[in-house]
Amino acid sequence: MKLKIAILPGDGIGPEITEQAMKTVKALAKKFNHELEYEYALTGAIAIDKVGNPYPDETHELCMNSDAVLFGAIGDPRFDNNPKATVRPEQGLLAMRKKLGLYANIRPVETFEQLLHKSPLRRELVEGADFVCIRELTGGIYFGEKGRKDNGNTAFDTNTYTREEIERILKLGYEFAAQRRKKLTVVDKANVLESSRLWREVAQKMAPRYPDIQTEYMFVDNAAMQIIQWPKNFDVMVTENMFGDILTDEASVITGSLGLLPSASIGIHTSVFEPIHGSYPQAAGKDIANPIATILSAAMMFETAFNLPDEGKAIRDAVAASMDEGFVTEDIAQGPAYKTSQVGDWIAHYIEK
Amino acid sequence: MKLKIAILPGDGIGPEITEQAMKTVKALAKKFNHELEYEYALTGAIAIDKVGNPYPDETHELCMNSDAVLFGAIGDPRFDNNPKATVRPEQGLLAMRKKLGLYANIRPVETFEQLLHKSPLRRELVEGADFVCIRELTGGIYFGEKGRKDNGNTAFDTNTYTREEIERILKLGYEFAAQRRKKLTVVDKANVLESSRLWREVAQKMAPRYPDIQTEYMFVDNAAMQIIQWPKNFDVMVTENMFGDILTDEASVITGSLGLLPSASIGIHTSVFEPIHGSYPQAAGKDIANPIATILSAAMMFETAFNLPDEGKAIRDAVAASMDEGFVTEDIAQGPAYKTSQVGDWIAHYIEK
Ligand SMILES: CC(C)[C@H](C(=O)O)[C@@H](O)C(=O)O
Ligand SMILES: CC(C)[C@H](C(=O)O)[C@@H](O)C(=O)O
Repeated sequence: MKLKIAILPGDGIGPEITEQAMKTVKALAKKFNHELEYEYALTGAIAIDKVGNPYPDETHELCMNSDAVLFGAIGDPRFDNNPKATVRPEQGLLAMRKKLGLYANIRPVETFEQLLHKSPLRRELVEGADFVCIRELTGGIYFGEKGRKDNGNTAFDTNTYTREEIERILKLGYEFAAQRRKKLTVVDKANVLESSRLWREVAQKMAPRYPDIQTEYMFVDNAAMQIIQWPKNFDVMVTENMFGDILTDEASVITGSLGLLPSASIGIHTSVFEPIHGSYPQAAGKDIANPIATILSAAMMFETAFNLPDEGKAIRDAVAASMDEGFVTEDIAQGPAYKTSQVGDWIAHYIEK
Repeated sequence: MKLKIAILPGDGIGPEITEQAMKTVKALAKKFNHELEYEYALTGAIAIDKVGNPYPDETHELCMNSDAVLFGAIGDPRFDNNPKATVRPEQGLLAMRKKLGLYANIRPVETFEQLLHKSPLRRELVEGADFVCIRELTGGIYFGEKGRKDNGNTAFDTNTYTREEIERILKLGYEFAAQRRKKLTVVDKANVLESSRLWREVAQKMAPRYPDIQTEYMFVDNAAMQIIQWPKNFDVMVTENMFGDILTDEASVITGSLGLLPSASIGIHTSVFEPIHGSYPQAAGKDIANPIATILSAAMMFETAFNLPDEGKAIRDAVAASMDEGFVTEDIAQGPAYKTSQVGDWIAHYIEK
């Protein structure tokens, strides 16, 4: 099969970690006889520095012409505390999501036995937790009308959702639930927000079409509590963009394996695969960042974008082996620690042999 | 001193728990020689049932004429899964907040040694955590313009903040921080929302006026992680209405003492004191609900609304004694459990003697 991949390393540790993932991808292509075509493009703060745009047109063109996008991370502290900056790295991310129609962000929340001691939760609560967060990614308050009034003294943002947007993401939620433990939790704030009432209305209309799946409704404030109190009760959680931003990050730390978790953003034009951790600027260039989340994102890419589950499994097995053998970076090492590049090499070799 | 209190028991367990708090208040008034005047009024689902309005005008009048309001809880499952209900209990809560100008919701997050084993977090992470969440309560997306378009197929909510609203709540945040460990964490989403950029702009302008206090800025998704990873790093957290709804609930469960935590809502016209837990309909009328959060809310009432710290301390001491002696309800009992009314009596007698 021909695999056409765009690589967007981005900022901070982005270049290092995508490099390790690409070692894995190349090893897989060789082993499974796929024809691999890939190209790099700019995004994030580095793209602002080089061409003044965090998601340049050439980058967008490349993504549109690729079967999948492997993404590193973006973000630079220079921009964070400057409310007056007019161009920000995050705008590149938002532009990419909108232009590629990346309507669904998928984040599996899984525990790794070796890392449970790093979980902030008590072991018995989180051990075996296994759920998927699906966050709507191109609607809501991120993309609604926003601005200032009264000489800049009043600011507003608009949260908007259409029936179609809600149906599309809930459908995906039901499809995931059908493949899993058959429970869908729809998170909203229907007791306050009109947009949430539309979410609940749509969900209540769709639920009878999926009689095998239990549909559960939960207010977002309650969900924020349940995630830490009873994480094992969740199977598939679906929610809107802003709530998803908060809840998926909360969910990602309960496992103790934030540095290991991948994500997929399913799009209309192509799909994007990236680690959920950030650009970690303090570690950039030091060859110490953990590449596993990006490597597992490549596994999701094979499974989701290319529909090649065996290749995905080969990556997962190699990652599991590196962890079993303790061939890991310092953040999770219990014995000697290895460098980012060494871990990447080890996993790629494991796949090749 | 003359103490004029409005009591709004509300729904579910509301009547039982406010009754226990009033036993305490009466005992205190007797002991400290205060003249106590109090009156009950309707709110919530029960007010809808009786007079068709979850925050009737007479209730509002009473609150306006009281020095403080002791509030139970509202909410009824009959309304939750009915997106078409036109009158909801929560509207009463929102109307009360708006009409009384309850601009700041204060929630102390404290751990109780006896309950640490109930925390979902590992003991060493949460033991000694002690912070205050201040949530803006009369602005933002809760009160902005909302509605439908396109024949009901598009729904929207507007998040609006003015400079004055932000200044007012940040000022309160700085005042709290000055009395505590001198750190203020301002939580926003300034990398995406225009309203958050105004929050950060205002905070950055105010910070130099409080040179003793360290001002820290945090994105809401990061805050959702930090609360469970490093709860001891927080001292005072200030945020907008919707973020506050989510984060304060998340913060409330990390201690294992959700059923014990009080809150105060500081208003322009009067202030409201209520437990942070809900109306717990399954327990209503069974005399099993834990009254401590409501009793501690009465302590906050003496401290905050009446500026009577000794009276507040008398309540806190009595509550601590009941917990030390194990004279508590079934939810936290480690030995024999007592009824709601028995715990209320015990604490009131402890104060009296
Ligand atoms: C950087 C920011 C715009 C982004 C978001 O809020 O969507 C990030 O937090 C994420 O979750 O991918
Ligand atoms: C009932 C609801 C409207 C309310 C809110 O979201 O403000 C509640 O969750 C709270 O936090 O007091």
